[in-house]
Amino acid sequence: MKKVRIGSVGLGRLGLLHAQNIASRIPGATLTALCDLDEARLEETAKNLGVQRTFTDFAQMSAWDGIDAVAIVSPSPMHTSHIRIAMEHGKHVFCEKPLGITLEQCKDAEHVVTAHPELIFFLGFMRRFDPSYAYAKAKLDAGEIGRVVLFRSYSQDPDSQIEGSIAYAPHSGGQFLDMAVHDIDLARWFIGSEPRQVWAIGGCYAYPQFAQYNDGDNVSCLMKFEDDAMAFLLAGRTAHHGYNVETEIIGTKSTLRIGSVPQKNFVEILDGYGVRKECSQSFHERFETAFLHEMREFVTCISEGRRPEVSVFDGTRVLEIANQCKTSFETGNLVSCK
Amino acid sequence: MKKVRIGSVGLGRLGLLHAQNIASRIPGATLTALCDLDEARLEETAKNLGVQRTFTDFAQMSAWDGIDAVAIVSPSPMHTSHIRIAMEHGKHVFCEKPLGITLEQCKDAEHVVTAHPELIFFLGFMRRFDPSYAYAKAKLDAGEIGRVVLFRSYSQDPDSQIEGSIAYAPHSGGQFLDMAVHDIDLARWFIGSEPRQVWAIGGCYAYPQFAQYNDGDNVSCLMKFEDDAMAFLLAGRTAHHGYNVETEIIGTKSTLRIGSVPQKNFVEILDGYGVRKECSQSFHERFETAFLHEMREFVTCISEGRRPEVSVFDGTRVLEIANQCKTSFETGNLVSCK
Amino acid sequence: MKKVRIGSVGLGRLGLLHAQNIASRIPGATLTALCDLDEARLEETAKNLGVQRTFTDFAQMSAWDGIDAVAIVSPSPMHTSHIRIAMEHGKHVFCEKPLGITLEQCKDAEHVVTAHPELIFFLGFMRRFDPSYAYAKAKLDAGEIGRVVLFRSYSQDPDSQIEGSIAYAPHSGGQFLDMAVHDIDLARWFIGSEPRQVWAIGGCYAYPQFAQYNDGDNVSCLMKFEDDAMAFLLAGRTAHHGYNVETEIIGTKSTLRIGSVPQKNFVEILDGYGVRKECSQSFHERFETAFLHEMREFVTCISEGRRPEVSVFDGTRVLEIANQCKTSFETGNLVSCK
Amino acid sequence: MKKVRIGSVGLGRLGLLHAQNIASRIPGATLTALCDLDEARLEETAKNLGVQRTFTDFAQMSAWDGIDAVAIVSPSPMHTSHIRIAMEHGKHVFCEKPLGITLEQCKDAEHVVTAHPELIFFLGFMRRFDPSYAYAKAKLDAGEIGRVVLFRSYSQDPDSQIEGSIAYAPHSGGQFLDMAVHDIDLARWFIGSEPRQVWAIGGCYAYPQFAQYNDGDNVSCLMKFEDDAMAFLLAGRTAHHGYNVETEIIGTKSTLRIGSVPQKNFVEILDGYGVRKECSQSFHERFETAFLHEMREFVTCISEGRRPEVSVFDGTRVLEIANQCKTSFETGNLVSCK
Repeated sequence: MKKVRIGSVGLGRLGLLHAQNIASRIPGATLTALCDLDEARLEETAKNLGVQRTFTDFAQMSAWDGIDAVAIVSPSPMHTSHIRIAMEHGKHVFCEKPLGITLEQCKDAEHVVTAHPELIFFLGFMRRFDPSYAYAKAKLDAGEIGRVVLFRSYSQDPDSQIEGSIAYAPHSGGQFLDMAVHDIDLARWFIGSEPRQVWAIGGCYAYPQFAQYNDGDNVSCLMKFEDDAMAFLLAGRTAHHGYNVETEIIGTKSTLRIGSVPQKNFVEILDGYGVRKECSQSFHERFETAFLHEMREFVTCISEGRRPEVSVFDGTRVLEIANQCKTSFETGNLVSCK
Repeated sequence: MKKVRIGSVGLGRLGLLHAQNIASRIPGATLTALCDLDEARLEETAKNLGVQRTFTDFAQMSAWDGIDAVAIVSPSPMHTSHIRIAMEHGKHVFCEKPLGITLEQCKDAEHVVTAHPELIFFLGFMRRFDPSYAYAKAKLDAGEIGRVVLFRSYSQDPDSQIEGSIAYAPHSGGQFLDMAVHDIDLARWFIGSEPRQVWAIGGCYAYPQFAQYNDGDNVSCLMKFEDDAMAFLLAGRTAHHGYNVETEIIGTKSTLRIGSVPQKNFVEILDGYGVRKECSQSFHERFETAFLHEMREFVTCISEGRRPEVSVFDGTRVLEIANQCKTSFETGNLVSCK
Repeated sequence: MKKVRIGSVGLGRLGLLHAQNIASRIPGATLTALCDLDEARLEETAKNLGVQRTFTDFAQMSAWDGIDAVAIVSPSPMHTSHIRIAMEHGKHVFCEKPLGITLEQCKDAEHVVTAHPELIFFLGFMRRFDPSYAYAKAKLDAGEIGRVVLFRSYSQDPDSQIEGSIAYAPHSGGQFLDMAVHDIDLARWFIGSEPRQVWAIGGCYAYPQFAQYNDGDNVSCLMKFEDDAMAFLLAGRTAHHGYNVETEIIGTKSTLRIGSVPQKNFVEILDGYGVRKECSQSFHERFETAFLHEMREFVTCISEGRRPEVSVFDGTRVLEIANQCKTSFETGNLVSCK
Repeated sequence: MKKVRIGSVGLGRLGLLHAQNIASRIPGATLTALCDLDEARLEETAKNLGVQRTFTDFAQMSAWDGIDAVAIVSPSPMHTSHIRIAMEHGKHVFCEKPLGITLEQCKDAEHVVTAHPELIFFLGFMRRFDPSYAYAKAKLDAGEIGRVVLFRSYSQDPDSQIEGSIAYAPHSGGQFLDMAVHDIDLARWFIGSEPRQVWAIGGCYAYPQFAQYNDGDNVSCLMKFEDDAMAFLLAGRTAHHGYNVETEIIGTKSTLRIGSVPQKNFVEILDGYGVRKECSQSFHERFETAFLHEMREFVTCISEGRRPEVSVFDGTRVLEIANQCKTSFETGNLVSCK
């Protein structure tokens, strides 16, 4: 079996994780090239991971015939131009979420992906590959929960990371775009329908700094879906217990909860604070397996010529919905989701 | 210490529970009189509980000088007229929720209560007396959770009781008035502010019978409070696991969850279905202690001349908010809460 | 229905709890008399609970025809002489555990109880009346767990009460007699067989003071029962999380665990310590309902002329087994349980 | 960095798992050779995993200079002869538990390992590499639980696998050797002391077939350690809920529990059976990560010339203790652990 040769761009925290996974944890792939502007980091990482070539220019890497595919973990505003470049050089593409940060970018990505049906395009909604989320979805697909009544999902960052969140606030696009996109993707996936209307609220409960960007440190929204299912989403930056991602699906036959205790592991402590479980502190810790599994699936899709479940159009749709949430939050109005 | 002599009206399931509590579980009280239209049940209950006198006419019981107070557990539409009758005969009043079923009724109750400042008026929002809810409130009052970001509360009835719910649907006033009043009361109690706007949605996911009353079998609403706190409420009739009342209060310092596993007791079962806890099946089972504690507090308020925490005005306010939820649900619009 | 008139002796912490339960929480009973050597406490309690007469001499109270029954909550060494006095005056007897502190005392109690078949004798193994333990027993009786393989039970006192435990150590009879009697009773109840052999070990892990009494701050034993069932018991004084009583019954069909999280209530806290539940801190807190239910059952046994499930012979048997555990602990040998 | 070239022997269920891990999940290693008697399986696996050479004779593989190390996952009775052969050919050795099945075998392994101090010898007690066990051990090492009072550990196989267990019973060496070795290893690791005395009991509660091998379907033992710590171990074959491995360490400062709910993942189900978590069904499922981490550690030890934490002498000691448990079980006596 010939290995898929991948070049990865972006060596931030998540970029490094993807690079490590490709380099050493995915049987069918090799990490053949790396691209980043920080040359020192680039060389050090290449050496550690045994990578053949390095690039500071993404177009050059894309043009190289030593790779079959690229993994795009660059800053969000560059995603769609990197998609275009890579695909025009005939490379398969794995792209981190979000697809783009404007509707125009997403439409551009749609065009280039559509123009290259022979190439795999894979969008990194990794939660779908978390064993617990996948297990829950299989139960839903088997009819075990009946019709979806309510989908509830939280994305909460630890308060300990608030400085980074505030620093990134001018560029994040707001909590709905930056955090809730995962929950929006999951809502569409589990409900199997599209949101019809949304009302979003929130505020600056602890950190007034977000107000200048028309944002809050905690925001939420209620959505009504085409099939009448309800969805309630929360995105927050002030969880003192850790990184809290949890989802509940209430159906007419049963209810599923994923991650309702965001436990770090299977250790239970009994001490002066009671009976307690310590919590995950970061997406790396909570979704380590999910990141690995999604990359493995990307490689398998290439090897077997299979279409990924998530399409470029899903990427656009999630952006549109996040923007509608943001509009509702900013105007205070009920917003129609087209 | 002279015992408070109480006459109780209404011998439905909850009325019987209150009668038993007064008769035998509250040191400072005696159940001296009972009133109901069903004479057979009346006599049997009086005999079982050792009650001195029985009445089929509430005004006659209220006029009797053998009682100091009444407990009103009659059908909801009769609450406010019973309040008026009792108070005009100089009796203290415990009244089950809701205060009334129309704003006019509530206003009438406000007038009569205000006109009798020498009498105790007690409205039965029993959840406040549940040990877990009371414990959570004490933590909030002690500043342990910081500022309230999100209040989330569910009231779900077991699907096994759906026939009764459907039969009662024409008279219930809808899920918001019939079920969510407790959650609305708790939201105001924990947040310490008033809702400003609400959007309510829902549907008939399993039982189309509710549609003819402009109601759903599951409904929810998102509220924005004056102080920016968010509240999300769910009321449903289709929980297959049992009677599920749970509340979460996310604050800027910590999060509290009450009843997130609606366990019947402290038994854990490990068998072919996994590791599991069986669930409460009714409000009697879940809130047995709360019903007892609220009646004890009513009696103590009388004995010590102390004002109850919940006032008649709270009863009116909760009705108004439930009606605003209902209006939003029926019209599909965002509704202002005055 | 004529109320059972009870006189209670002993106003320590548990004696007061029993007195309050009899006085105000049990429909079929009245607390008519109180007996204690501390006259100030006696008068104050009698006044608070509305008790008719007080005694400083137990024999005088027993002789009074204003009572039908006595509740013995006096110091353990006096239990059996109080039983004899009460029964010889024709009174029904509720006696706190342990039955006695020597085999001779227990045999004396057997004789007097046997000589008065017309009187109810009730021994206070209250855990059997805890709703969770009762629920588990009902499941076992219904055949749901199959044959008992292993019975495991812990009785752990909070470390915060260690000073009292050390002060009481010279009189306690050791951890097996003072603490594990409940677990021994439960083991016989759940297994339905008798222990055949026991090996007990332990030590002074934190508090060397227990060594002078040939005791440990934590002790355990493994027992083989006649029917081959295994039992593992732990009694300890150093639990930092609180009052921990938990029991596991592993059967051939399923496993039941009672109290494996010794949670105080249904509140879950998410904060810097993780996701946690605070714990019960005392037997009062954990077994409040059990103490009430056992006294209610005592009164019902009198009213209905029904035999209690636990007999005086059970009291003797439990003492014998606790002594055999102690012998094994002291000698280091395997001990046969007759 | 030069990769460690490994040849693996034994392609049973666990052998295949190790082979897959070496082949594709460990950056510093390559699976260069495979050895098994089943040629069809051998060729198929080699092809799937891209393995260079295959052998049906272990000595030939050991003699080949294309490998640096061997992984021994052959049947237990062959472990020590494979160790000798490999080391005499200058290969590093990873050996699955148990080290051997007789004391003589273990002594032989000690001699050969001692004679080759330049080679790494690694014994596969994989639980130490499970993230939760490792986390608990780090807490203990940091002094957070104080002195160990009681170590309790269960190894329970699902009842659904009973046929295989019965078929293997003649060769298993009994539950203590076959199952409890992991718990014995953990006990010594967490307590940091050696057992002094043991008493073991048990029986055939559901499957009389084990009796003919002087064994039970469930067995347990209580151990007293040199430092007075207590240890209670259970090994069973009849768990209906799944594969249950759990450990509790009660210390003088706090208590840790690992795996007390043997949940398969982070999904919670609320349905007619209550609130429940489904359980792991096999060691593969529960310890997938542990198997990977131990092999990674083996490779790192070779690369960095570091001694593994577990030595060949630990392997011998665990066998001795398991045999002492078996002796106690068979004779009914207290047994001294030397």
